[in-house]
Amino acid sequence: MSNTLGLLFRVTTFGESHGPGTGCVIDGCPAGLEVDLDFVQSELDRRKPGQSRLTSQRKESDRVQVLSGLYEGKTTGAPIALFFANEDARSKDYTHLEHTFRPSHADFTYQAKYGVRDHRGGGRSSARETASWVAAGAIAKLMLKKHGIGIRAYVSQVGDLSVPLPYSELDLSLTEDNPVRCPHPETAEAMIALIEEVRKEGDTVGGIVTGVISGCPPGLGEPIFDKLHASLGKAMLGINACKGFEYGSGFGAVGMKGSAHNDAFYQEEGRIKTRTNYSGGIQGGISNGMDIYFRCAFKPVATIVAAQESVNDAGESATVEGRGRHDPCVVPRAVPIVEAMAALVLADFICLSSSSSPPSTH
Amino acid sequence: MSNTLGLLFRVTTFGESHGPGTGCVIDGCPAGLEVDLDFVQSELDRRKPGQSRLTSQRKESDRVQVLSGLYEGKTTGAPIALFFANEDARSKDYTHLEHTFRPSHADFTYQAKYGVRDHRGGGRSSARETASWVAAGAIAKLMLKKHGIGIRAYVSQVGDLSVPLPYSELDLSLTEDNPVRCPHPETAEAMIALIEEVRKEGDTVGGIVTGVISGCPPGLGEPIFDKLHASLGKAMLGINACKGFEYGSGFGAVGMKGSAHNDAFYQEEGRIKTRTNYSGGIQGGISNGMDIYFRCAFKPVATIVAAQESVNDAGESATVEGRGRHDPCVVPRAVPIVEAMAALVLADFICLSSSSSPPSTH
Amino acid sequence: MSNTLGLLFRVTTFGESHGPGTGCVIDGCPAGLEVDLDFVQSELDRRKPGQSRLTSQRKESDRVQVLSGLYEGKTTGAPIALFFANEDARSKDYTHLEHTFRPSHADFTYQAKYGVRDHRGGGRSSARETASWVAAGAIAKLMLKKHGIGIRAYVSQVGDLSVPLPYSELDLSLTEDNPVRCPHPETAEAMIALIEEVRKEGDTVGGIVTGVISGCPPGLGEPIFDKLHASLGKAMLGINACKGFEYGSGFGAVGMKGSAHNDAFYQEEGRIKTRTNYSGGIQGGISNGMDIYFRCAFKPVATIVAAQESVNDAGESATVEGRGRHDPCVVPRAVPIVEAMAALVLADFICLSSSSSPPSTH
Amino acid sequence: MSNTLGLLFRVTTFGESHGPGTGCVIDGCPAGLEVDLDFVQSELDRRKPGQSRLTSQRKESDRVQVLSGLYEGKTTGAPIALFFANEDARSKDYTHLEHTFRPSHADFTYQAKYGVRDHRGGGRSSARETASWVAAGAIAKLMLKKHGIGIRAYVSQVGDLSVPLPYSELDLSLTEDNPVRCPHPETAEAMIALIEEVRKEGDTVGGIVTGVISGCPPGLGEPIFDKLHASLGKAMLGINACKGFEYGSGFGAVGMKGSAHNDAFYQEEGRIKTRTNYSGGIQGGISNGMDIYFRCAFKPVATIVAAQESVNDAGESATVEGRGRHDPCVVPRAVPIVEAMAALVLADFICLSSSSSPPSTH
Repeated sequence: MSNTLGLLFRVTTFGESHGPGTGCVIDGCPAGLEVDLDFVQSELDRRKPGQSRLTSQRKESDRVQVLSGLYEGKTTGAPIALFFANEDARSKDYTHLEHTFRPSHADFTYQAKYGVRDHRGGGRSSARETASWVAAGAIAKLMLKKHGIGIRAYVSQVGDLSVPLPYSELDLSLTEDNPVRCPHPETAEAMIALIEEVRKEGDTVGGIVTGVISGCPPGLGEPIFDKLHASLGKAMLGINACKGFEYGSGFGAVGMKGSAHNDAFYQEEGRIKTRTNYSGGIQGGISNGMDIYFRCAFKPVATIVAAQESVNDAGESATVEGRGRHDPCVVPRAVPIVEAMAALVLADFICLSSSSSPPSTH
Repeated sequence: MSNTLGLLFRVTTFGESHGPGTGCVIDGCPAGLEVDLDFVQSELDRRKPGQSRLTSQRKESDRVQVLSGLYEGKTTGAPIALFFANEDARSKDYTHLEHTFRPSHADFTYQAKYGVRDHRGGGRSSARETASWVAAGAIAKLMLKKHGIGIRAYVSQVGDLSVPLPYSELDLSLTEDNPVRCPHPETAEAMIALIEEVRKEGDTVGGIVTGVISGCPPGLGEPIFDKLHASLGKAMLGINACKGFEYGSGFGAVGMKGSAHNDAFYQEEGRIKTRTNYSGGIQGGISNGMDIYFRCAFKPVATIVAAQESVNDAGESATVEGRGRHDPCVVPRAVPIVEAMAALVLADFICLSSSSSPPSTH
Repeated sequence: MSNTLGLLFRVTTFGESHGPGTGCVIDGCPAGLEVDLDFVQSELDRRKPGQSRLTSQRKESDRVQVLSGLYEGKTTGAPIALFFANEDARSKDYTHLEHTFRPSHADFTYQAKYGVRDHRGGGRSSARETASWVAAGAIAKLMLKKHGIGIRAYVSQVGDLSVPLPYSELDLSLTEDNPVRCPHPETAEAMIALIEEVRKEGDTVGGIVTGVISGCPPGLGEPIFDKLHASLGKAMLGINACKGFEYGSGFGAVGMKGSAHNDAFYQEEGRIKTRTNYSGGIQGGISNGMDIYFRCAFKPVATIVAAQESVNDAGESATVEGRGRHDPCVVPRAVPIVEAMAALVLADFICLSSSSSPPSTH
Repeated sequence: MSNTLGLLFRVTTFGESHGPGTGCVIDGCPAGLEVDLDFVQSELDRRKPGQSRLTSQRKESDRVQVLSGLYEGKTTGAPIALFFANEDARSKDYTHLEHTFRPSHADFTYQAKYGVRDHRGGGRSSARETASWVAAGAIAKLMLKKHGIGIRAYVSQVGDLSVPLPYSELDLSLTEDNPVRCPHPETAEAMIALIEEVRKEGDTVGGIVTGVISGCPPGLGEPIFDKLHASLGKAMLGINACKGFEYGSGFGAVGMKGSAHNDAFYQEEGRIKTRTNYSGGIQGGISNGMDIYFRCAFKPVATIVAAQESVNDAGESATVEGRGRHDPCVVPRAVPIVEAMAALVLADFICLSSSSSPPSTH
């Protein structure tokens, strides 16, 4: 379970940051889909560290190797296996952590759960895992494109600096124009300055990524326990450092009254739409054809330069100092990850939706 | 899938608000567990409508019938089937909605997904469904109690009125002392007044429920795609009207720096603890032994008295008036539901955790 | 898992032979399917005991109650819950078995697994469970009919008496003409005589049920671990007393050479067919459009009149005498069960097959 | 689903015979298990082609590469990814099959299902896939050994030549002494002669593999739809060319009477045993502590030298000639595969069994 996402469009991941590599198996991708590997690589390049001063200086080329499942550039219905060989893995950087638990990392909990752990680079809990997510998500995006569905994410907040406009008033095509991936240029500039400042202090800062799904047909999502927003929420909360998820009006709905919050229906050009979209494109767990949008809160990265109080695996007091090469703020690199996870969730629901249609009359 | 929750401790639900009844099948509950049916019923009584002026006046006795799985008061390892016969179901109240979509309800999306729907009382999307959740959750609570795990929830916000203290400074045993289920008496009083006012206006208001899990051993949760908080989040987001979920520091983490947010480890009486608990008891998706706490945002109930613009299933303009018997604020009755969903998630992870332990040496 | 069958068209069962009743929840049945309840009941009547001298004299009316999921005679996409209230349950018949394990029953293994058991009538392992299978299977048959798929089963062997012709040379419409459900009248007569003789001896005898699926389109089944025949085999082996499964040439293939066994392809009226059908309609785990046929071996029923050596739950020697009302031969009543299980497997693959089709070009 | 086996001890496979390679991801293997890679490789060597004149002369070294999941020779609880690079893949051998369907292969059904296929070497349906099964099974065997469970398989029939003794009267340690893997030396010799003769004719012949599981504790297996023998049956039927499965008395039970077939219980040294074992170690789908044994029927390999009638993917008549390097009889190499599949099924039930135990009293 723990390493597999999805019911029909399924991704199973493997690998540690300091072993031979990481990778994934995508099972259930429909046959006959053309897979543009340049697009997959370009998505990976958005995720990789070392892109700018704002991100970890760890060098990873993140070249994807296709081990199976494609034939003459198309999917065959067989599992697609992808692999990323590890490079530049300085295991020695982690020797001092072999017996000590870094605060607010997964070191202690992995030890508690498994009785053993690969301490190098966070082992299985390393962010390197997300290369597989982004690659699988890129293939999901290609499939979704055939269904007219597009997915965009951007940084809407860093520390206390937030974009002053809702997504619908932004030009999301500007997102990739700056290293912080914020489509509001003035805010982006301030965010960059803040991250640089935090980095100089050896500290880290949190942020928010907003995701927007457009072109989603009505009827996606499964009632009760697999509601569309609940599945999106689980996927987002599965991203390292994500502490909260809200969709549509989100926590802001709490202070509203029903008379203001309800989205009136109207008809336009044969399509049923809503005048407002506090529902965030989802009602009763099922898409209604409007834009789906959501926000993911990320905590400040746990690796900092200052010495911190901790304990070791013998239960004794210990001091931890951050020596790895990490990001001062996770959100710029989280943008393609949020998009990928959304794409994987949507792809699974697209596959599921075909199965819930009425039987054809013979 | 859509009507089943859990991998090993599995709950499958069924039923509509206006058919013979609703119910569930609980599969995977360990054998030999004593099931106190009075406790199960008392949990159901916390959920049922008509408890006070703050809730819907619809009368439901919500008597649980056990159809299978218990023998001499104990579980046998066989599926436990529970049933709630429908009573006081005024189907006629819904005749005017047969062809019209209520704004911000699931009417339109069910029609879009299935091409057919049982319009009476929301059919499958009715809150009546949650009786099964609460009953199954009560059995899960009994199982968790054997493992030392306790679950409490309470209303921490209604509209703009929020409890001024964190959960750890409240006496949660006061929660059931007032109909709004807020353990902070002064705030509770204000909340009650606000809900009454909103009700008189024929309007509704949102709120927040906070959940607290104590006594959870370290090691629960599965890395990567089934992180403990992600599974909790999905369960909570599956509750009708829930628009957002956060755990630990949540959205508040965004504005913090890593140096302030990290939870230092220390040792006390042989147990490893953290000085602060911004992590919310979960690190890397796995419990660390500290309290787990989280918050769920609920939108204002969609059913209001005022006439609303909408369309009918022919795509024509239509007006919807609320005539059913509904709650002005969902959060007081959401409290036992939040607890139940948390219990079901935890019970599943408890079952899973036994399977990930090292093989015993023979 | 253990009480759920299927991935998308899912049946979850519950109930014991001596509690309030048994039943099931069918989740994933497509919306808009007309459910002819008379047909469902007629299938149940084929399964119920007391039909003839050949079967148990236990009286069960097996009236199906629909608890949810149908609206105006059609499925809505919501779970369909079915219930069978227990009647004529003589629990006292089983008092002598409270502490003793009947040979070749599930008494000992349930006790070993769960540490507790409901000894009355076999509890969960009772054949009464199969009422749910047959009812769910009837709904699956209605769905399959829309896809042109028909399922027939018949008794092809009792003891050493076997039908001398392959299924393709029999008139399967004769199956229901005699109580043993064998479409070869002379063999049927001999089988009936044999079963009567065995019954008079207080003994039981085994048999074989052959199943035939016609009209199955090419492409059903999933490669590797969910091959169509493997899923059929698992479903059949899950029927009480089933000891073996073979499809197509089955065990008979062992003595054949490849040159004789291979099924040559040819084309007829635009359809690709095979000249012989040793493959049993399935190649590489996927249907090829030819008839699918298979055989299920059933052991003699374990309940006999003679006293038998056993032990009790204290591990002491004990003697077991058969006092319940049981069948001298299980296969006549197994016929509708085999059909139902085949229908459930096929319905699931039909649902799955829609999801593996190439994405439509938008 | 189709490429994943197991619920908790899960194996997901990927790869084609003529791409970069094949492999698998094992998720859910308990942490702390010592993995002897020499043992894993020795199991693979039993499976690989080119071992003797009786098997395909295709050369594959089948060296397993561990991509993840082991740390200092032990499992960490993280997914174990294994990879087998393809060598000696003569794709040109298959050019003539690009558009033609080989009789009794999966060519036509894959084309029908997916609309596309990798025709080289059977693509995904190649027996090369089973390298992953055997490697994963070897790790499962190491885990099972800790629980005292041993698994042995052997060839019990080739063509019409069958071993004249039941498994319990054979010395299974002799199995590996001859290339046909039959522990009865005289029969082995005759089998070898038969296979050689068949090979010279350019033909193929079927056979039976018998599997024996010893040391299995009572209580493994899940009632109703995941019975132990049903899961074993599905796993075996999933092996290429397997046409039938029976356990215990199997098809032989059909001609028996209940009075002869029932296994009387007795007690010996504190353990409950049965005097006979027609039940094959499983009652009601759950292990009873006796040996589990079963038989798998394999058809003759479909690839033969003689020209065969067929059609091409345009639906026109075509002739197929066998030119690849294939086995005249599949059963000798099927022996380690049967063992591996049995080990994977048992490992999953061992993991599941921990979860169904009564909750510990706190």
